[in-house]
Amino acid sequence: AVRLRVREALGARESVGEVKVQGWVRSVRSQKEVLFLHINDGSSLENLQVVADPSLENRDLAFGSAVEVQGRLVKSPHRMQSMELKAETIRVVGPCDTWSFPLKVKERHSLEYIRQFPHLRCRNNTLGSLLRIRSEATAAIHSFFQDNGYVHIHTPIITSNDCEGAGELFQIETSNEARESARKTHFFNVPAFLTVSGQLHLEVMVGAFTHVFTFGPTFRAENSQSRRHLAEFYMVEAELSFTESLQDITQVMEDLFKTATNTVLSKCPRDVELFHKYIAPAQKPKNFLVIPFTVILIFFFFSFCRVSYNEAVEILKQASQTFTFKPEWGCDLQTEHEKYLVKHCGEVPVFVINYPYDLKPFYMRDNEDGPQHTVAAVDLLVPGIGELCGGSLREERLPFLEARLQRLGLTDAYQWYLDLRKFGSVPHGGFGMGFERYLQCILGVDNIKDVIPFPRFSHSCLL
Amino acid sequence: AVRLRVREALGARESVGEVKVQGWVRSVRSQKEVLFLHINDGSSLENLQVVADPSLENRDLAFGSAVEVQGRLVKSPHRMQSMELKAETIRVVGPCDTWSFPLKVKERHSLEYIRQFPHLRCRNNTLGSLLRIRSEATAAIHSFFQDNGYVHIHTPIITSNDCEGAGELFQIETSNEARESARKTHFFNVPAFLTVSGQLHLEVMVGAFTHVFTFGPTFRAENSQSRRHLAEFYMVEAELSFTESLQDITQVMEDLFKTATNTVLSKCPRDVELFHKYIAPAQKPKNFLVIPFTVILIFFFFSFCRVSYNEAVEILKQASQTFTFKPEWGCDLQTEHEKYLVKHCGEVPVFVINYPYDLKPFYMRDNEDGPQHTVAAVDLLVPGIGELCGGSLREERLPFLEARLQRLGLTDAYQWYLDLRKFGSVPHGGFGMGFERYLQCILGVDNIKDVIPFPRFSHSCLL
Repeated sequence: AVRLRVREALGARESVGEVKVQGWVRSVRSQKEVLFLHINDGSSLENLQVVADPSLENRDLAFGSAVEVQGRLVKSPHRMQSMELKAETIRVVGPCDTWSFPLKVKERHSLEYIRQFPHLRCRNNTLGSLLRIRSEATAAIHSFFQDNGYVHIHTPIITSNDCEGAGELFQIETSNEARESARKTHFFNVPAFLTVSGQLHLEVMVGAFTHVFTFGPTFRAENSQSRRHLAEFYMVEAELSFTESLQDITQVMEDLFKTATNTVLSKCPRDVELFHKYIAPAQKPKNFLVIPFTVILIFFFFSFCRVSYNEAVEILKQASQTFTFKPEWGCDLQTEHEKYLVKHCGEVPVFVINYPYDLKPFYMRDNEDGPQHTVAAVDLLVPGIGELCGGSLREERLPFLEARLQRLGLTDAYQWYLDLRKFGSVPHGGFGMGFERYLQCILGVDNIKDVIPFPRFSHSCLL
Repeated sequence: AVRLRVREALGARESVGEVKVQGWVRSVRSQKEVLFLHINDGSSLENLQVVADPSLENRDLAFGSAVEVQGRLVKSPHRMQSMELKAETIRVVGPCDTWSFPLKVKERHSLEYIRQFPHLRCRNNTLGSLLRIRSEATAAIHSFFQDNGYVHIHTPIITSNDCEGAGELFQIETSNEARESARKTHFFNVPAFLTVSGQLHLEVMVGAFTHVFTFGPTFRAENSQSRRHLAEFYMVEAELSFTESLQDITQVMEDLFKTATNTVLSKCPRDVELFHKYIAPAQKPKNFLVIPFTVILIFFFFSFCRVSYNEAVEILKQASQTFTFKPEWGCDLQTEHEKYLVKHCGEVPVFVINYPYDLKPFYMRDNEDGPQHTVAAVDLLVPGIGELCGGSLREERLPFLEARLQRLGLTDAYQWYLDLRKFGSVPHGGFGMGFERYLQCILGVDNIKDVIPFPRFSHSCLL
């Protein structure tokens, strides 16, 4: 018998004799004359209908059990589906103790409920769709960069640098060291941390390649239970050399968003539809826009909006809305401000560029303007989420960088980073995009814990 | 002017007026009548030759400096290269202090030497080629799995499990906790470690999808300075459900190796050639086979060799060679044994299958044989490296797994893993391949530190 996946069986154009389909039972309906099964193997959201003689029924044939069905694939008489499998044999490969199985047949479990069972929730429709989408989005992002001549760099996870200067870091040590309360030496000789960004390491590479990217895990030890933060999350980061202006960076951000989203929509339309129909509307918190399918499509036909930080502050000051945090030049934009700006621009993605010098880290390029002194930084704000990407031109001029590091007392620590400006320095810049936030954005998922297979956050590291 | 990358310029079929090429100077040759530059932008191993009037010379125009050249791309009169750039203007974007630049013009630096400069070594030809190959190999591996219907899963980096049961682990804590010598609480409530394998998490997924894979960093706190070990390295791991025998697993291992290698050879032949011509022969240690290009090609036409552990021990016992470790049933194969087996099979990759039960971890499937009790495990040994991949069928039968965990006193810790066998358990298995060892194997690189952008090992975590 030819082994077919459910997706292949459903997509068959004509009848096939002697096929074998394996998967997990999603429903059993036993009638007097006929036995119906729906089976799923994770290759698609849709189940394959199996039609069998009632004599093939078996007490182990239940929701959740694993089966192997052999038979004939035929056109279904029902309009709703194209093909069904007329079973000749049904073998239960692994029974399921339905009584203790936390997932119940035909029940629409909430995302909160299934989050309690990280080892079983992938068998739920919603999480199944999410994981297929996540996989396709990952592939789409890799392809986008590869197709545009970027070199993929595995930036290190363990680092002795702290890119952002501040931020809550995870430190690592060998488990032996951890057991001894007084440690004298480190495994790496120096304190070592989990990376918060691959940017500085990409900047190394952008001195030899004109386009590089990385896509990997990053870490923050933020003691937060928020819907927006994880201790371990994925970042897509790109760095380009020989840049002329911030426009070079924002163009890549916009192209990446549009290309990846377009691919995901075309590769798994049914999975995305599930989110837009059932998940996003149910989760919609007050004043929070859930992006419908059509709006995402509209993104493709419009350029993203673009305002300077200075303009943004003016817009906020003139807003009729009262904010908890008063908008003021020199202060960071709060989530409420970001939401207002996105709404003001018509609920489309908005680039905010040129932030105050004093708000931003040392590596951002000085715009040498005044009296409101800014750096060439950019944030991309998106409906429903707020900040999705952050980037900047980097300070490539040795004297500027030296002066800034000196003032911060970081000259010794960043000697290697200064070296990059001594040996063939080039104007360059880049950005990072939070991958989970991206998924939340295109799917309308409220809680970040529901878009990653194994969420890690304060007080929780299951499995 | 049209901006062209060096690779594009070299590949042009005919003359183009008004182009702009940016990159770093690899050599300057000033003659009475003409100035020659070679520039490289990381898009290929080959440099683009720039031909200019001597009046365009400039004292900042030196090895390592960044330049922008505008001019006309024309067919070269020399046979060695297809196109060259007749410069109209040459602008030095970033000068290079050649005196203090550790890389010197026209010098063939050793891999050991450039390893001292992790922030600059990517500008060396060899490392440039390595990073392009690594990027293409990464893409090829992703494509292989995607094309075969595998779902990509980001298995967690931080975990509260310890997959192998033993092994040196890295433990993580917040940097605040690290500063206090007496810690009472953990950020995650439980001790948390850096992953040594995504296998158990893939086994979760293989209960919902028939094919899954992951490709990410893994960690070992081994206090080793060996040429074969890193504290942070990349693993490709795949897991399949509804397996029938170990053959299902070895087939994927073989296909992955051949497909990825084929892609790399066809995408960057010049880069691979550099290794086979200059690096591999120079590094060849005694009795160590360096795989020439042609041998790799031969891999495609032959199936990999296959011996059982039992047969392997017999082969070793009958060997004329004397080993430091006497070959004996029940003992692990040592590197010397692995090398002998590979040689015995004619210097081709060799699968060794069915290892002693007592040598292997709890999750491997019991073969229920005797008196020499084995499990369905497999290692792939390759010329020049030894073990490249390890895999097994997993114990999917609840009673077997329960009994084994009980004997090890691990029943409580692995309750969730037992759950996977209660709710629609299926025969399954998988493997992991060390990505750096794979690169060492196909390129003939002796030291693992030279095939990863930022190597981390005991006493060293630069940048």
